[in-house]
Amino acid sequence: MQRYKLTISYDGTNYCGWQVQAAKESIQSLIQKALETTLRHSINLTGSGRTDAGVHAYGQTAHFDSDLLIDPFKLRLSLNGQLPLDIRILSIEKVSPDFHARYSATSKIYYYNLHLDRVANPFERLYRYHVFKRLDLDLMRLAAHEFLGTHDFTSFANEPQRGTVSYDPIRTIQRLDLVPIEGGVRLEFEADGFLYKMVRNLTGALIECGAGRVPPSEIPKILVAKDRRKAFLSVPAHGLFLSQVRYIPK
Amino acid sequence: MQRYKLTISYDGTNYCGWQVQAAKESIQSLIQKALETTLRHSINLTGSGRTDAGVHAYGQTAHFDSDLLIDPFKLRLSLNGQLPLDIRILSIEKVSPDFHARYSATSKIYYYNLHLDRVANPFERLYRYHVFKRLDLDLMRLAAHEFLGTHDFTSFANEPQRGTVSYDPIRTIQRLDLVPIEGGVRLEFEADGFLYKMVRNLTGALIECGAGRVPPSEIPKILVAKDRRKAFLSVPAHGLFLSQVRYIPK
Repeated sequence: MQRYKLTISYDGTNYCGWQVQAAKESIQSLIQKALETTLRHSINLTGSGRTDAGVHAYGQTAHFDSDLLIDPFKLRLSLNGQLPLDIRILSIEKVSPDFHARYSATSKIYYYNLHLDRVANPFERLYRYHVFKRLDLDLMRLAAHEFLGTHDFTSFANEPQRGTVSYDPIRTIQRLDLVPIEGGVRLEFEADGFLYKMVRNLTGALIECGAGRVPPSEIPKILVAKDRRKAFLSVPAHGLFLSQVRYIPK
Repeated sequence: MQRYKLTISYDGTNYCGWQVQAAKESIQSLIQKALETTLRHSINLTGSGRTDAGVHAYGQTAHFDSDLLIDPFKLRLSLNGQLPLDIRILSIEKVSPDFHARYSATSKIYYYNLHLDRVANPFERLYRYHVFKRLDLDLMRLAAHEFLGTHDFTSFANEPQRGTVSYDPIRTIQRLDLVPIEGGVRLEFEADGFLYKMVRNLTGALIECGAGRVPPSEIPKILVAKDRRKAFLSVPAHGLFLSQVRYIPK
């Protein structure tokens, strides 16, 4: 038995997300189907985690097992030949049998793209959230600083994870940078993991601070409250990218 | 009577092109309709030229006349509010009545984007032509050099312009650069004007040279032949952008 790791890029616009949902096509199911067509045995494809409907990925990861002798280069060619052009397998690597796409991950990096120009860019309409309100990036940086480190992020997590037995709302944000891009700004989040809708909820809070509606000094109080109702609206899925999943180097 | 100049950016993926074609929606007709809705009189919107179905624009230009007192800033806001997100009015300026979007243009700049990596980028699938064959960029630069200057471009022009009374196949290419982009190369064409499908036909010839199938020294012979059948296949519309229309500075 050999385990293989896939690195995958996709435009999430046309999908219900990574994981199968009632009736709609998911990215995972399309890749699994392509693997089964090529390898002619049933495949259990395990992703690093779900991405929601409309969320994109530069570097989603997943693993599967096979007893066949596989040439990773040829398999990639075969999968990309079958998959729609908005899903691309970037690489396939042999990994040790104790590698697990989800549990071996040490951190994840998400990007959220904000377009701040008055006129939106038609070529970025599916990949950036257009904010009309003028944002003070310095205030957003102060707010971002309040999220750094280890906190209980209950106030910034949506259902349905909450309430399940193993639910742990403690996460550590190692990095939260505002990187200028043409006509806007990219928020870069790196953490040991993210709760459901956490990146979009944090982005919503940063926008509130940048718009001057909430002082950054409020953020610690909202974290301590552990109450989703104390925080702010989420932002749309289409600005969000799973950029990278990090693992301990082999 | 006041004349106004529009600068427009659009993603051409979902349109039949700039100009109205039987039954399908065109970019020109959508903008004209939005203008008529806001200004409440009939509008004749004249573009700098057509772009074909699926061709994009960063800076298409057009003009129209009105007797109304118009605030260009408010009009832009109103048009962008009505138009779909894949068409954006970038600017509206008052111009002198002898300005003409087509006849006052001194040159046009087109871009053609080639993706040359083995795996395509899912986010660029609608904006770049993916070439699997390995291309020699130095050979392409030699070939590009042969197109520079004033030539009869009949061999690189498609129907239907040919044969019309005023048809003049002489054009001057001022610039034809290969600019590296992530995972590929952008061809930048600047000329006093382009014949029908000329940019896509020239790009097809450059690819033939880059793939080593045609030596760049053949290009002058093909130009002299003045015969479309002596040249090569065209490339798809989705890699093509009308980047800029230049006018004599006021």
